Amino acid sequence: MSNAPHTWPRLYVGTLLAEKASLTLSPAHSHYICVVLRLREGDSLRFFNGRDGEWRGMITQPAKGKTQGTLVTLVEQLRAQSFGADIWLCPAPIKRAHFDFMIMKATELGARVIQPILTARAQIRETNTERLRAIAIEAAEQSERLDLPEIREPVTLDSLIKEWPKHRLPIYCAEFGDAQPAAQAFSGALAHARPAAAIFTGPEGGFTEDESARLRAMAETLPVRLGPRILRADTAALAALACWQALCGDWQSRDFSTRPTEKREGPHEP
Amino acid sequence: MSNAPHTWPRLYVGTLLAEKASLTLSPAHSHYICVVLRLREGDSLRFFNGRDGEWRGMITQPAKGKTQGTLVTLVEQLRAQSFGADIWLCPAPIKRAHFDFMIMKATELGARVIQPILTARAQIRETNTERLRAIAIEAAEQSERLDLPEIREPVTLDSLIKEWPKHRLPIYCAEFGDAQPAAQAFSGALAHARPAAAIFTGPEGGFTEDESARLRAMAETLPVRLGPRILRADTAALAALACWQALCGDWQSRDFSTRPTEKREGPHEP
Repeated sequence: MSNAPHTWPRLYVGTLLAEKASLTLSPAHSHYICVVLRLREGDSLRFFNGRDGEWRGMITQPAKGKTQGTLVTLVEQLRAQSFGADIWLCPAPIKRAHFDFMIMKATELGARVIQPILTARAQIRETNTERLRAIAIEAAEQSERLDLPEIREPVTLDSLIKEWPKHRLPIYCAEFGDAQPAAQAFSGALAHARPAAAIFTGPEGGFTEDESARLRAMAETLPVRLGPRILRADTAALAALACWQALCGDWQSRDFSTRPTEKREGPHEP
Repeated sequence: MSNAPHTWPRLYVGTLLAEKASLTLSPAHSHYICVVLRLREGDSLRFFNGRDGEWRGMITQPAKGKTQGTLVTLVEQLRAQSFGADIWLCPAPIKRAHFDFMIMKATELGARVIQPILTARAQIRETNTERLRAIAIEAAEQSERLDLPEIREPVTLDSLIKEWPKHRLPIYCAEFGDAQPAAQAFSGALAHARPAAAIFTGPEGGFTEDESARLRAMAETLPVRLGPRILRADTAALAALACWQALCGDWQSRDFSTRPTEKREGPHEP
């Protein structure tokens, strides 16, 4: 088996991670590790739980049949816990395949909280939070994130605006009217020293005029335009998130440029 | 029927568009317009062909059965032809659902040319160019684009590099090593007065070390990092494209902020 940490499978678990701690993998994880990937005693894998950083674990006893899960002992911490930029995504739910996609991509792009909003034109009024959370876990595992986005239950736009925390900058993706191009708007927001922010995107039919007015009436709302074309709801969410991360978020750091968990490239190649 | 141009259906056609020209809709368009949308004589729709701008057409004779297509007469030009930023996307093909998605989103985000590249680790070696073109047409119709992206047949990375046009800046999305964060890199590229550029993204397994070296060895290649997380191939392509458009491309313009073809909002509401 490879000695390169970036090649070790990476699993999100809910349990405490600490030196010499023992873990019993869930049946699903056991199946994936011992049957699909065929790992054996002594092989390494990685764990994160969103609190204790990333840990190397070694298999001490592979699963036996379906009754006994794989046993793992934690060996060392590979990375200390860190969190990305404090950026929320507040999207109106859209059709399932596109919303799934949005959750997956927003996780890769580092959204900290995903708060679905119910708006007048939304055709989708419910979300399956457990399913969305499973999608986010898989995306976090694959993207080397150390935390999970928090996926909340949908709330109405009204109630969210009413209880809006004052320190968080609302960013409203406008399809028309007096909104700045994204790069200008976000560069301006940098003056606030990388504030906590939240990106609002509407359903396929867009926000109503009334909803737009209420969004714009929030304190210091930043209305932004995402170019001359009309973007679908999922495209708008991801484009806005990527631009925010690039200009105001955690893409600015260069700390990560030589980290050891690079994927299948460079000197770590097995 | 609504008098608001932004509510009129929008179709891409291959034919010449000019004042008083007559068009016969294809069977598929006829079905969509007369059966699905139930438009009638005198109703308006919009056309673009990538060369002659956007035109308003009026139905002069709806389809009769399956043998005679809908007849339309062009009334007036609504928008003159324009083109977006000169940005290409050169992606290694990935699994069908994700590649379809990439083509759709890249069209919305204004890629001018999509040139699939064959790389060592690509599991997908063929693309169905006609299918991808149909996806791009639908995305262009919905996104109010006035042109289509040109979708090329796949070529090997080697042959593309060999014949690379010198004026076009290659942007290489790097997963590791000495690459600048995207915002810095793109802001630097602005010094070149919004150059022609092309974004290269690898397959799910990434570029090989050798491929990365060859990409970096091209004249003035811009290696960029897209944040601290590992992005999937489709996410990387769209994030890079959005950031390029925001910083160097056609999102900088404010010309479009009050154009009349806004979607379902504002004073044009029927």
